[in-house]
Amino acid sequence: SYHQIRTCQWAYAIDLPFLPISSALVTSVRRCYAVRMQPIRIGILTISDKGSRGERADTSGDAIQELVGKRGKVSLRRIVPDERSEIAAILASWCDGGEVDLILTTGGTGLAARDVTPEATRDIAEREVPGIAEAMRAAGLRHTPMAMLSRGAVVVRGQTLIVNLPGSEKGVRESLGAIIEVLPHAVALLRGDTEHAPAP
Amino acid sequence: SYHQIRTCQWAYAIDLPFLPISSALVTSVRRCYAVRMQPIRIGILTISDKGSRGERADTSGDAIQELVGKRGKVSLRRIVPDERSEIAAILASWCDGGEVDLILTTGGTGLAARDVTPEATRDIAEREVPGIAEAMRAAGLRHTPMAMLSRGAVVVRGQTLIVNLPGSEKGVRESLGAIIEVLPHAVALLRGDTEHAPAP
Amino acid sequence: SYHQIRTCQWAYAIDLPFLPISSALVTSVRRCYAVRMQPIRIGILTISDKGSRGERADTSGDAIQELVGKRGKVSLRRIVPDERSEIAAILASWCDGGEVDLILTTGGTGLAARDVTPEATRDIAEREVPGIAEAMRAAGLRHTPMAMLSRGAVVVRGQTLIVNLPGSEKGVRESLGAIIEVLPHAVALLRGDTEHAPAP
Repeated sequence: SYHQIRTCQWAYAIDLPFLPISSALVTSVRRCYAVRMQPIRIGILTISDKGSRGERADTSGDAIQELVGKRGKVSLRRIVPDERSEIAAILASWCDGGEVDLILTTGGTGLAARDVTPEATRDIAEREVPGIAEAMRAAGLRHTPMAMLSRGAVVVRGQTLIVNLPGSEKGVRESLGAIIEVLPHAVALLRGDTEHAPAP
Repeated sequence: SYHQIRTCQWAYAIDLPFLPISSALVTSVRRCYAVRMQPIRIGILTISDKGSRGERADTSGDAIQELVGKRGKVSLRRIVPDERSEIAAILASWCDGGEVDLILTTGGTGLAARDVTPEATRDIAEREVPGIAEAMRAAGLRHTPMAMLSRGAVVVRGQTLIVNLPGSEKGVRESLGAIIEVLPHAVALLRGDTEHAPAP
Repeated sequence: SYHQIRTCQWAYAIDLPFLPISSALVTSVRRCYAVRMQPIRIGILTISDKGSRGERADTSGDAIQELVGKRGKVSLRRIVPDERSEIAAILASWCDGGEVDLILTTGGTGLAARDVTPEATRDIAEREVPGIAEAMRAAGLRHTPMAMLSRGAVVVRGQTLIVNLPGSEKGVRESLGAIIEVLPHAVALLRGDTEHAPAP
């Protein structure tokens, strides 16, 4: 049916070059049919001083859009400088506006002086989801030990999930690939679409 | 001797179907003889709106009791609704009452709106033990990627260790299985029964 | 050149008995040439009641000095008791004094009543780097399940990185071995020596 096709937009999302086809795929497709009745509404926030001045193309934001855009609906997208209060204000306003179920940020998660995305994200967070951030870093460590420097946070505000992805396009693809399978279920739980969650 | 038999109740606890027999078992048995002189006193707190109204059987609490009850002594057990202040008040009162060394909670660790067990636990925590929570999630990921949505915290208040286990019986068994080996030593350290800890 | 030799003092540091020679070594040597132009200035802080009273030799501090001392420059070294405010005051003063890029602490990360190093470290932290702490614990779990009791934090204050290592000499060697490869790059990012970080 139309609903089933829309519903499973996300399930197809995990059939990406960097993801092994596994029995988890089958499970996920089935779960997808069961729990999702609406496309996920997504906000993409790029945090970059240079990007915000138009001095650098937002290839990381584009990569996110490519990876999730065809399955969900990217309702909001913006580039901001690495300013803690500005980042926090936008995240809070996007969450409270009720227009997005999921916000994916890119940039500002490293150790440079102006990298404050995790702090800005926690400033407006109500609850933290440490396991998603741990899973992204554990996946990154399989590629490079430098992944342990990624400080990204994953939090909930209201019914919106916020995920801090790294700033590089490669980091975005690896991190998002590690968690993309659970995002539809996470959003469904936040929206109250499903009563009985599996494991957690 | 009698003491040795009582002491090693916990060592036998790791001989469970889902745990591989390994050299760690031998190490653990030896360590157990060395550090434990008293049975561990345990509190089990089930956090569930439905359970607290008597609308659902507390199978997860029963699973905890089954897994740890024969080795330690379950002194306290209760079911409460998913109310942050109520959960926090009970945890604090159990810790401060001096009746339990270890509190195992089940429920309220997910993403649904009323899942606030980790927040309630941190409200009354003095120190956090992130490695136990990380180890539970890492073990869960071997079964399902959904384990990364488990937000359980592990903290210390006074001389009591509090561990947030997932709400499902399956999640309880998997998470507890991943950490049960270290719990006697953790409690011994908190009670000051052992001066020299091994690794940490 | 002289600069290249000084620069790569840290790259040699990863050629240690407990670290496998791998392609990461080559990558690291190259990265080292690219990003480091100054030797890393290191502070070693041992947190131990007995050590501070001269009742125990500081073998863990010595192990740190041995592992990092020949490659970086140990500018500051001290032993303090397990007193939260005292630990915090020294860490803050070392960071703000501008004499060290990296502080390695040992001790006070366990569950005993007086183990408060992570709390003292967070008291004066500006930003947290959870991935380094996670990586140390994950590496430790390959040796012993007790590694999950290690509560060490890794934080940034100003341009200084603070890493809480365990108290035992064995724990120091295992934990430091798991992260030593990324420390030069972490310090370079904090000092602004490199504009484009790899993955994170």
